[in-house]
Amino acid sequence: MTKSLLNQIELPSDLRQLPESDLPQVADELREFLLQTVCATGGHFASNLGTVELTVALHYVYNTPNDHLVWDVGHQSYPHKILTGRKHRMGTMRQKDGLAGFPKRCESPYDAFGVGHSSTSIGAALGMQVADQLQGRPNRHVAIIGDGAMTAGQAFEALNNAGDMKDTNLLVILNDNEMSISPNVGALPKYLASSVMRDVKDLVKSAKNKSEKVLNKLPGVLDVAKRFENKLKEAVDGSPLDMHISLFEKFGFEYTGPVDGHDVLGLTETLKTLRSKSGPQFLHIITKKGNGYKLAENDPVGFHAIGKMDPAVGPVKSSTPAAVTYTQVFGQWLCDQAAVDNRLVGVTPAMREGSGLVAFEKQYPNRYFDVGIAEQHAVTFAGGLACDGIKPVVAIYSTFLQRAYDQLVHDVAIQNLPVMFAIDRAGIVGADGPTHAGAYDLSFMRCIPNMVIAAPSDEYECRLLLSTCYQLNQPTAVRYPRGSGTGVDAGRELQTVEVGKGLIRRQGEKVAILAFGSMVQPALQAADNLNATVADMRFVKPLDEALIIELANNHDFIVTVEENAVQGGAGSAVLEFMAKNKLCKPVLNLGIADVVTEHGDPKLILQGLGLDVVGIETSIRNFMI
Amino acid sequence: MTKSLLNQIELPSDLRQLPESDLPQVADELREFLLQTVCATGGHFASNLGTVELTVALHYVYNTPNDHLVWDVGHQSYPHKILTGRKHRMGTMRQKDGLAGFPKRCESPYDAFGVGHSSTSIGAALGMQVADQLQGRPNRHVAIIGDGAMTAGQAFEALNNAGDMKDTNLLVILNDNEMSISPNVGALPKYLASSVMRDVKDLVKSAKNKSEKVLNKLPGVLDVAKRFENKLKEAVDGSPLDMHISLFEKFGFEYTGPVDGHDVLGLTETLKTLRSKSGPQFLHIITKKGNGYKLAENDPVGFHAIGKMDPAVGPVKSSTPAAVTYTQVFGQWLCDQAAVDNRLVGVTPAMREGSGLVAFEKQYPNRYFDVGIAEQHAVTFAGGLACDGIKPVVAIYSTFLQRAYDQLVHDVAIQNLPVMFAIDRAGIVGADGPTHAGAYDLSFMRCIPNMVIAAPSDEYECRLLLSTCYQLNQPTAVRYPRGSGTGVDAGRELQTVEVGKGLIRRQGEKVAILAFGSMVQPALQAADNLNATVADMRFVKPLDEALIIELANNHDFIVTVEENAVQGGAGSAVLEFMAKNKLCKPVLNLGIADVVTEHGDPKLILQGLGLDVVGIETSIRNFMI
Repeated sequence: MTKSLLNQIELPSDLRQLPESDLPQVADELREFLLQTVCATGGHFASNLGTVELTVALHYVYNTPNDHLVWDVGHQSYPHKILTGRKHRMGTMRQKDGLAGFPKRCESPYDAFGVGHSSTSIGAALGMQVADQLQGRPNRHVAIIGDGAMTAGQAFEALNNAGDMKDTNLLVILNDNEMSISPNVGALPKYLASSVMRDVKDLVKSAKNKSEKVLNKLPGVLDVAKRFENKLKEAVDGSPLDMHISLFEKFGFEYTGPVDGHDVLGLTETLKTLRSKSGPQFLHIITKKGNGYKLAENDPVGFHAIGKMDPAVGPVKSSTPAAVTYTQVFGQWLCDQAAVDNRLVGVTPAMREGSGLVAFEKQYPNRYFDVGIAEQHAVTFAGGLACDGIKPVVAIYSTFLQRAYDQLVHDVAIQNLPVMFAIDRAGIVGADGPTHAGAYDLSFMRCIPNMVIAAPSDEYECRLLLSTCYQLNQPTAVRYPRGSGTGVDAGRELQTVEVGKGLIRRQGEKVAILAFGSMVQPALQAADNLNATVADMRFVKPLDEALIIELANNHDFIVTVEENAVQGGAGSAVLEFMAKNKLCKPVLNLGIADVVTEHGDPKLILQGLGLDVVGIETSIRNFMI
Repeated sequence: MTKSLLNQIELPSDLRQLPESDLPQVADELREFLLQTVCATGGHFASNLGTVELTVALHYVYNTPNDHLVWDVGHQSYPHKILTGRKHRMGTMRQKDGLAGFPKRCESPYDAFGVGHSSTSIGAALGMQVADQLQGRPNRHVAIIGDGAMTAGQAFEALNNAGDMKDTNLLVILNDNEMSISPNVGALPKYLASSVMRDVKDLVKSAKNKSEKVLNKLPGVLDVAKRFENKLKEAVDGSPLDMHISLFEKFGFEYTGPVDGHDVLGLTETLKTLRSKSGPQFLHIITKKGNGYKLAENDPVGFHAIGKMDPAVGPVKSSTPAAVTYTQVFGQWLCDQAAVDNRLVGVTPAMREGSGLVAFEKQYPNRYFDVGIAEQHAVTFAGGLACDGIKPVVAIYSTFLQRAYDQLVHDVAIQNLPVMFAIDRAGIVGADGPTHAGAYDLSFMRCIPNMVIAAPSDEYECRLLLSTCYQLNQPTAVRYPRGSGTGVDAGRELQTVEVGKGLIRRQGEKVAILAFGSMVQPALQAADNLNATVADMRFVKPLDEALIIELANNHDFIVTVEENAVQGGAGSAVLEFMAKNKLCKPVLNLGIADVVTEHGDPKLILQGLGLDVVGIETSIRNFMI
């Protein structure tokens, strides 16, 4: 048995002690270690399998951490974490106090830039490169970006800027993987330069030779040959064009590629050359998402992120049926509403699965619009649709709506256009952590004129408020949390309720809890111990003013509770209304504290924030003293 | 004397009655009318002179308003307004209750999409085209976008999406004007397809013939010849490349061009052909910003927008010296701070003049970064700079920071990076109206962890708070209003103050006014009549909690006043703090009302919102009853 090399590597400096000829073995061991650890913890999967060789080559050639590797999106950074001192902590992945699923500056000096959202790497790495050159430091920085992320506007803005900086020694690596050849990322990744076909052919040959090198113990095999054959076929069909070369060279970059992203020795040689070059460099590598694990190669969407699983057989099926998620409630509602109103269309920025639009796309393919990773465009496009008699529903995560904030204000709200936002993952998101926190949407939307904002408290309410907001002739938002609700049957009705009216869910005395959305349930439980009144406010904007007056007049203490930042959130709206009406009563605002909330099990995070039953009860008791 | 044609045109239907041969005369009359009216009122100028012929041709060929013209940014839409029923109201341009400086849906059915920010036109027009085709309507829609706006990420996102929709009959017109050939818009507009050089030569010929057609009464002449000679020279030098063609065709568009954008008959013929074609069409026209008016042609930056002027001699110089603006205070501070700290760099998204960076660029060219119309990239780039020891100052308008909201949260604040935002045009902006309103920044920033937010009350305070925030090691924002301050000398010191500390500016009784930023001055004046206490709070986050407690304990009424939306703004922060500390006192929150604020003289707008001295005093008196 060969001696393990990975065991000898704690930090990249250890890796750099090895002879170059050892790198293929390091890569193989790294892939297997990765497979075993991710199967044990769950986490992002397919994209990490695709970046094993690249990661080894980068840390071998670049002088990390002085040289920075900036991973775009960051869910391909597990091999990087394994090689940079965190091998023994991989079992804590995405758990509270454990490793983050993305690069994170406070976790390691090797994590150059915190990330989670896509398309930021080129701009960030450019900033670092400029900073070091301004200060006379010789460090070289690298942005690693997928072709999906490359279609977002921000990446283009950064390319346009970087290419103009002729003295800046930035390297951008385009990680062109199988996922690029999909309809939802637009025209860009469809093309390869015809003048590089010779290289592609060479790659095919080299890849075929390598296909013998299998990881025998595993069901997946290293089979890049097919991948390159497809590329070649494209070439012969006459469809390949000079997009990449003309584009990236015209943007001012010196272009190298495409090269085989699973050939660690070839990559090492290429990177050595590039590290010594001046000016903006662009390296185009071809990889396979899920590489080395057959199940993931065949279904990279399904294996993008996984739960715990047995590597030999795939995902372990749960014996208990999964609870219905808010995402599913929305997906079903969208289909049902579409059936009775042919003005409805669905818009998503590349989140078909995540936003629950799979069934809608199948049933209404002509009314389904996946615009790619392009939140800004998604919202303005919806604004255009709404101008001409269509009623668009934009399905978007709370955290990604931040990318389209100006479009929400400038293109939708100011013009009072009937665009509805179905905002998923509002509140604490759990394992994805602070970069994905949906903690701010109530605050950043509440100041916008013409908006109606609803926050359903369970699955049934979610459907009710979606139907209610949909029929309005103005901008609306329904925000609901990640995961499952209370287990209530959402039904199949398309009933509506009065806008801006809440309801009393429990009549108590002394304390009135004005609860919003996901906090209604824990508030009701806390109220049982306090004999407090609980209102499900349903709407954050407009507020149910009559209800607030009534509750304020009949109780000694008012409590607001929401899964959003306290600053400017729903509770703040209640304070503003009470002040305006001179309702001088003690008010306690409960919500997400003004700190960066870390990753981990959502229940534990909410508990830490005092937003579980015990926390709410305790806070209220302390306030009443 | 020829009979006036423009007099006969009230609406595009009148224009469409004329024989095609009359169109050149219509265009000439329209240009002169435009020149006279803009000189009388002031307003956007150079870009409107560039779109005269295009506007005539579009309304002649397209069946407006059923066919929609979507003007990007919108400051080139004056000729469109003149031809669509608003000729007689041009004298009210940008004044209260007068015409808006941009297309505006509620102003005219011919204004298909409200605008002001750049790069939204392709996405909006795509939405309209899809909407009409889904509903079986034959209408054809057109997006007209400049090459500057084309460099913003959102435009790329829309192109990437539109090109994929092969059945969508959208026309995108790239208005490639002289302003494109400038370093700050990046690589894209520098190139013309070499295969179209023949067309360019033809254009040169045609343009030379036309150079005799002068507007004799005016100092400017119609001289496109030079423009095309330059293009040709580029070609001969070998620099022109196939960027445009390869790019736009690869995005799935059928490409036509480049054609002479000042040849109204040629444009008419081209548009007739394009209107009947299927699938996404791309027309590339060459125009000259300021065309037909020599002074504007020679200085399109200076003549982008003008005050009232005499067309024969140019701008009328004011006899009174202009008051110092906050923009100038910032620009001077930046130079002075840079002189003592070589870690400082300045970053702007294409707003060198507007943000007061002209002197800084001259003095510190290596530390000045204009990244183009690319707010998202500007902020992430700054984040990257801050990672490696640089202290970036991002100079940005409040309304444009909305474009980089996610980057502020995800790339700067979560990582607690020392990026400083110098936020200009915070509050009411006046003539530019609701699309440019800086009314939301306090609300959308206050919920973000790690932020320090300051609001200076005069020029001296502005400099003080800039220096104070700059030296902090975390994300900071200093927000100041458009225009001049109180006339106080800002000085040249780089003094700092304690963060989160305000000061009492007037000691009174009963009423304590907690004033933020620009509202301190009117609050002081109102306080004289009320004998109220006034505090200049200086910081919105963190608040001066000790000061609030002191004032709440010693007064019967608390008033907050700010030039931001009441919803979630600074007053809301005061309410949250008081609630948390059980300070039960009547609080009056004054700020911008929750409606879309229209354009007009800022003084009148503030008066209408009750944010002038009289309004503040009246509101307080009413509250005390």
